[in-house]
Amino acid sequence: MKYRRFGDTIIVRMDTGEEIVKETLRVAELEKVRLASVEAIGAVSEFEVGVFNMAEKKFYGNRFHGTFEIVSLLGTITEMHGKPYVHLHLSAGDETGVVFGGHLNEGIIGPVCEMTIRVLDGAVERVFDENRGINVYDF
Amino acid sequence: MKYRRFGDTIIVRMDTGEEIVKETLRVAELEKVRLASVEAIGAVSEFEVGVFNMAEKKFYGNRFHGTFEIVSLLGTITEMHGKPYVHLHLSAGDETGVVFGGHLNEGIIGPVCEMTIRVLDGAVERVFDENRGINVYDF
Amino acid sequence: MKYRRFGDTIIVRMDTGEEIVKETLRVAELEKVRLASVEAIGAVSEFEVGVFNMAEKKFYGNRFHGTFEIVSLLGTITEMHGKPYVHLHLSAGDETGVVFGGHLNEGIIGPVCEMTIRVLDGAVERVFDENRGINVYDF
Repeated sequence: MKYRRFGDTIIVRMDTGEEIVKETLRVAELEKVRLASVEAIGAVSEFEVGVFNMAEKKFYGNRFHGTFEIVSLLGTITEMHGKPYVHLHLSAGDETGVVFGGHLNEGIIGPVCEMTIRVLDGAVERVFDENRGINVYDF
Repeated sequence: MKYRRFGDTIIVRMDTGEEIVKETLRVAELEKVRLASVEAIGAVSEFEVGVFNMAEKKFYGNRFHGTFEIVSLLGTITEMHGKPYVHLHLSAGDETGVVFGGHLNEGIIGPVCEMTIRVLDGAVERVFDENRGINVYDF
Repeated sequence: MKYRRFGDTIIVRMDTGEEIVKETLRVAELEKVRLASVEAIGAVSEFEVGVFNMAEKKFYGNRFHGTFEIVSLLGTITEMHGKPYVHLHLSAGDETGVVFGGHLNEGIIGPVCEMTIRVLDGAVERVFDENRGINVYDF
């Protein structure tokens, strides 16, 4: 993973074999990001996307292997317990163009991921919401 | 729906049962937004996405119920007849990860939607284009 | 294609029959954009999206015709050999809402595409990476 910062915007290149959530967290730590929006395109050779079952308050994961283009990777960096918190959703098209996606648990890059992180001047903390079973913006 | 504003950026949390287009419009009205870009992720328990038939100049709707993660929600806030105008397209992955989407008519949130609105200094008005049968930027 | 510039942000309207990659490049040239992020929604009557085979270091294309809503169009404008370089990924929903997408080779608009280009103060050059067979950010 390599990046350049231009004012409040960080342009990131992640490379083959790196994992998207982990590398995004690493940029957040290195650049001391407390609040940001994230967008990216690229490609993945393997990924797991979750889907949240509201009745069971539980995430289920769908895992995919093969040749996939990331068509959308959107989300935010916020904070929880004083540490950076990365929340990303990904969708990716397979060899025939059919698109699969969900809440990104893990995405192994191949051959590249190009991410734009827009840092905001401020902070948003997350809190666990017991009713829903998820971590939400603490507003 | 709750939000915090950081300079030109509004971070919004919409909650279970709220409708996305309506709540986005409400933020636009409360914050007097005349021009903005919108992006979000989250989840929906029900949504209707339209597809525009150019020959008939008519929108057809596809309605979905179930457990869906919003993988992309993109669009803009502009103006028409002096009022805020919200134009959003949504795609969402189902329990197996298959993604469905189109022009967002209605999206019922469950359990959350996290939206980032970037307000621009200026305004864009829409005008109805009779040839195409749609409301376009009046450039 | 018509556009208005508001500070560092360009709001673009592309119209029926125009091609997305070509028109994005034209805005970049007209506005002397060296580095920017791009996002859009709209509709296409025909498009080709590529998928990169890492083993063969080769792009394969999937072509679609019909009635499609663009649900996500994300990417960047950078530079290569001193000229603007447009890299976009697109996903689009068909008449039943099923979404297809990948690396955008060509997208014929119908009836409209609404794009937001955020210009950054700086430049990123691309370089051909022989190992991977793709043009990457030269970091």
